[in-house]
Amino acid sequence: MYRTNTCGELRLANAGQTVTLAGWVQRSRDLGGMTFVDLRDRYGITQLAFNMETNAPLCEQARRLGREFVVQATGVVIERSSKNSKIPTGEIEIEVAELRVLNEAKTPPFTIEEQSDGGDDLRMRYRYLDIRRSPVRRNLEMRHRMAMLVRNYLSDRDFLEIETPMLIKSTPEGARDFVVPSRMNPGEFYALPQSPQQYKQLLMVAGMDRYFQIVRCFRDEDLRADRQPEFTQIDCEMSFVEQEDVLCMFEGLARHLFKEMKGIDFGQFQRITWHDAMRRFGSDKPDMRFGMEFKEITDVAKGRGFGLFDSSELVVGIVAEGCADYTRKQLDALTDFVKRPQVGAGGLVYVKYNADGTFKSSVDKFFDADALKAVADAMGAKPGDLMLILCGPAMKTRVQLCALRLEMGSRLGLRDPQQFAPLWVVDFPLLEWDDETQRFYAMHHPFTAPKPEDEALLDDPARWGDIRANAYDIVINGCEVGGGSIRIHDRTLQNKMFHTLGFTDEQAAAQFGFLMDAFTYGAPPHAGLAFGFDRLCSIFAGADSIRDFIAFPKNNAGRDVMSGSPSPISQEQLDELQIKVDVK
Amino acid sequence: MYRTNTCGELRLANAGQTVTLAGWVQRSRDLGGMTFVDLRDRYGITQLAFNMETNAPLCEQARRLGREFVVQATGVVIERSSKNSKIPTGEIEIEVAELRVLNEAKTPPFTIEEQSDGGDDLRMRYRYLDIRRSPVRRNLEMRHRMAMLVRNYLSDRDFLEIETPMLIKSTPEGARDFVVPSRMNPGEFYALPQSPQQYKQLLMVAGMDRYFQIVRCFRDEDLRADRQPEFTQIDCEMSFVEQEDVLCMFEGLARHLFKEMKGIDFGQFQRITWHDAMRRFGSDKPDMRFGMEFKEITDVAKGRGFGLFDSSELVVGIVAEGCADYTRKQLDALTDFVKRPQVGAGGLVYVKYNADGTFKSSVDKFFDADALKAVADAMGAKPGDLMLILCGPAMKTRVQLCALRLEMGSRLGLRDPQQFAPLWVVDFPLLEWDDETQRFYAMHHPFTAPKPEDEALLDDPARWGDIRANAYDIVINGCEVGGGSIRIHDRTLQNKMFHTLGFTDEQAAAQFGFLMDAFTYGAPPHAGLAFGFDRLCSIFAGADSIRDFIAFPKNNAGRDVMSGSPSPISQEQLDELQIKVDVK
Repeated sequence: MYRTNTCGELRLANAGQTVTLAGWVQRSRDLGGMTFVDLRDRYGITQLAFNMETNAPLCEQARRLGREFVVQATGVVIERSSKNSKIPTGEIEIEVAELRVLNEAKTPPFTIEEQSDGGDDLRMRYRYLDIRRSPVRRNLEMRHRMAMLVRNYLSDRDFLEIETPMLIKSTPEGARDFVVPSRMNPGEFYALPQSPQQYKQLLMVAGMDRYFQIVRCFRDEDLRADRQPEFTQIDCEMSFVEQEDVLCMFEGLARHLFKEMKGIDFGQFQRITWHDAMRRFGSDKPDMRFGMEFKEITDVAKGRGFGLFDSSELVVGIVAEGCADYTRKQLDALTDFVKRPQVGAGGLVYVKYNADGTFKSSVDKFFDADALKAVADAMGAKPGDLMLILCGPAMKTRVQLCALRLEMGSRLGLRDPQQFAPLWVVDFPLLEWDDETQRFYAMHHPFTAPKPEDEALLDDPARWGDIRANAYDIVINGCEVGGGSIRIHDRTLQNKMFHTLGFTDEQAAAQFGFLMDAFTYGAPPHAGLAFGFDRLCSIFAGADSIRDFIAFPKNNAGRDVMSGSPSPISQEQLDELQIKVDVK
Repeated sequence: MYRTNTCGELRLANAGQTVTLAGWVQRSRDLGGMTFVDLRDRYGITQLAFNMETNAPLCEQARRLGREFVVQATGVVIERSSKNSKIPTGEIEIEVAELRVLNEAKTPPFTIEEQSDGGDDLRMRYRYLDIRRSPVRRNLEMRHRMAMLVRNYLSDRDFLEIETPMLIKSTPEGARDFVVPSRMNPGEFYALPQSPQQYKQLLMVAGMDRYFQIVRCFRDEDLRADRQPEFTQIDCEMSFVEQEDVLCMFEGLARHLFKEMKGIDFGQFQRITWHDAMRRFGSDKPDMRFGMEFKEITDVAKGRGFGLFDSSELVVGIVAEGCADYTRKQLDALTDFVKRPQVGAGGLVYVKYNADGTFKSSVDKFFDADALKAVADAMGAKPGDLMLILCGPAMKTRVQLCALRLEMGSRLGLRDPQQFAPLWVVDFPLLEWDDETQRFYAMHHPFTAPKPEDEALLDDPARWGDIRANAYDIVINGCEVGGGSIRIHDRTLQNKMFHTLGFTDEQAAAQFGFLMDAFTYGAPPHAGLAFGFDRLCSIFAGADSIRDFIAFPKNNAGRDVMSGSPSPISQEQLDELQIKVDVK
């Protein structure tokens, strides 16, 4: 061992002990008579002291240490004369008697500090230096701790972690697969799993009863800002359960994580149906850290001669409490916000309910004070509030207003990342219409069970959009962190579902044949859920990006700029695989 | 919830309680007045009782239940009249009042019993039924438990589990990579990791100090009987350690597993150098459950006019205690064994040291009684023993004798799979000569450090074969279950190593450039080890094959016969990836 103690461990109680530490030079200060070096490792920082008077050669040696040199120092723990209360080791220092440079270091391309001067690209290129910074290090430590908590919690409840294959069969349904050419079976390919969905259902057929896996999944999608081609799921499945059992089990897990990681005790999580979530917040993943619920005022708004309102399916708004004093400039900014292509509204109607009881609005021409009072009453606004109103086709308008609600929440400081508002969204639609391909798709996946009371609607194509699924999402602070469903365990119902999704018998058999076969040998009722682990970590840390919770992430082009992957491979490799690159 | 209790849980103390169970019909017995159904789930089997007298319709229903039907039964727990002491629930049964078929089942293609009548192919094709069998289920339960023990043990010792990427850069060194075409970067490929070797070393450079990961790895090799294209490693790395620290840490882990899983307390593991292992057992992974050490008798054997001995570099044998009474037929079988192409010896010399002190050997023509006595003394044989002797080039002969030793161990019942003999093999050669390509290869990998005292030999190509590495394997019962090394953390030494391995600077930079760059920014001394987790599980279970410790294994052609992967993909997929299949 190169050390007797870590750099985070020594206290005043250790004074007088001779110790050996090893770590990186964080910084050194040459004060003439004394030279101080902060030695850093994963566990903390300890000050090394070198005295010019008592040991000049050693002190000279210490002065030559560069940033990030790896050194080993032996000496006696002594009480510091000027203590540092900001770090746990701040009461002591090491009076160094022996110093050994284990490895030199070039000057790092950015500072290894809490706040780095390195840009994103540089930090990614030298990710191994970035990880030395405590914020990144803490994220990875937190991720480890969360994974351990999850595993022990589920294992204590009879879940078995079972590893499912990474080299599986490609299934065109869903997102695009990454594929892997098989050398031993030329012309054939494996796919990397988008999730272990089918395998976990097979494990239920296999009688494993409770399964989980913290597992890597892959999707070859065009990457948006915060998506990775490979990501990690906490994947779970249970047999002989109903929806309530699943929600209880995984709400329990989430509560356990909040308690252990954040010290927060949650009571029962709120629940909301998908339809209510859309109606009240314009989103299937509403941010519940604040209210500002939608107020539908179509009836009150229509018939005043304002064409936009009169011709709209829905007039709906939110009340920003205490914002009646917003300036022209602030209101213009909000109008610009909703008109951005990402939001796509035609415009924004505001109504100020001034503190003195008077009104000022962008529709004064059509709405007199009484009419505005009626609007205010319908929206539950009080003097001092600002009403912000959108109109148009119902669903589209709700989604636009959702963006405005979140913007107002941010502006008003109502979205504190250290506050947590978990929520279940239930009763998702089973099917989703796609205009482009002119057919219905499974909103979750083709194995999701309809609610039994809606099952009959499968026989009526006109009502397919109304069928509710036994599907649920867990949402925290406006992010979907997990979701799942009751699965279809009955083959007849599953076949009906495939037909609804436009699969021929042959297509269904080719893609899911082995799962469907399995279901004929005694499939138990089962259900499951998967958490996005990267996202869960980032939310618990109050961070926006998942990237800093992944040790070696890829950029938006799916590229690892540190290792330079992907990269061309040799002709020999291509020949062995019997494939050709055919770039147009 | 479809049940109040599992099928493994009820005892006499529960008598009188009304319970609901759910599970699979294991078997049913119709005794006329009574029908009994064994209901099975992952946790056990509970007997359901139906009484024709008190509830004829229900009893009729029970009689119609087929094997593997999924049913739910409600009733009262009662004491059995004829108890079954073989199962934990054997004192009770359920007097069923309500029975519901949750799912029917076709008759399974093989019996779901401890011993199945299904062949290997059928069991793999219907793996979800095979897993219902308790031996396979127990294997997966054991694997889960071992993984939990490993994680908690390492986490308690400050190891962090850090997930490394699965989509990495292809490196031609080592085994063949599986590759993944990148759609976003046409003509470029990711590789699936053969191990996270480089990433774990980067994590040490990153200051993470102690890393582990239970991680999937991939090798596109022609599959031997018990190899899988994807396999799982317990991958570990530590900073600021010397070899002794690593051995202690992971010996501790292995001891912990033996204690928790098998109730065995081991003292310190034996250690043996690679050279001694080869000399004494002809193997770098000797089975230490039994002795039968090699006895070199070259000096005694030569000069008797027996040409084969006289012309051999090495004459070496083993003593099979108490086997002097082996028949001609038994000795011929052993001769046939060593002459098999897999062993490849030219022949076998035996010397019987009869109980009466006389000798009988296959070389009586050249060796009189005195000479045979000298051989027996040199080999430490005593009356009643059988000596088995091979000769030829030293290394080749040792390897052949190793096969014979193991065969004799098996024949004599000395290799009980429920006995465990763990061992460290240390001081592996750094480099291995390859006749075919006429160059040296790294025996472990190019980052393995030579022993400091042998470092100077790197400057003398004639001595390269003699350089010992700071590398170690952990061997249990003749299987290598783990291995690792001290890594080179010094860039100069690493460059020298690359040159020794025949890499040009450009090749080294192209393949390992980012790791080498990282080493210039302050790499700590570090070392690591990886266990083969599939193998570790099979050895702990006393099983030969790893396949039954993997939920969904592939066959020797790399094929999953259950899902039918790999398989052709669509032209659309190929076009998107800009590759062509080019099968000759």
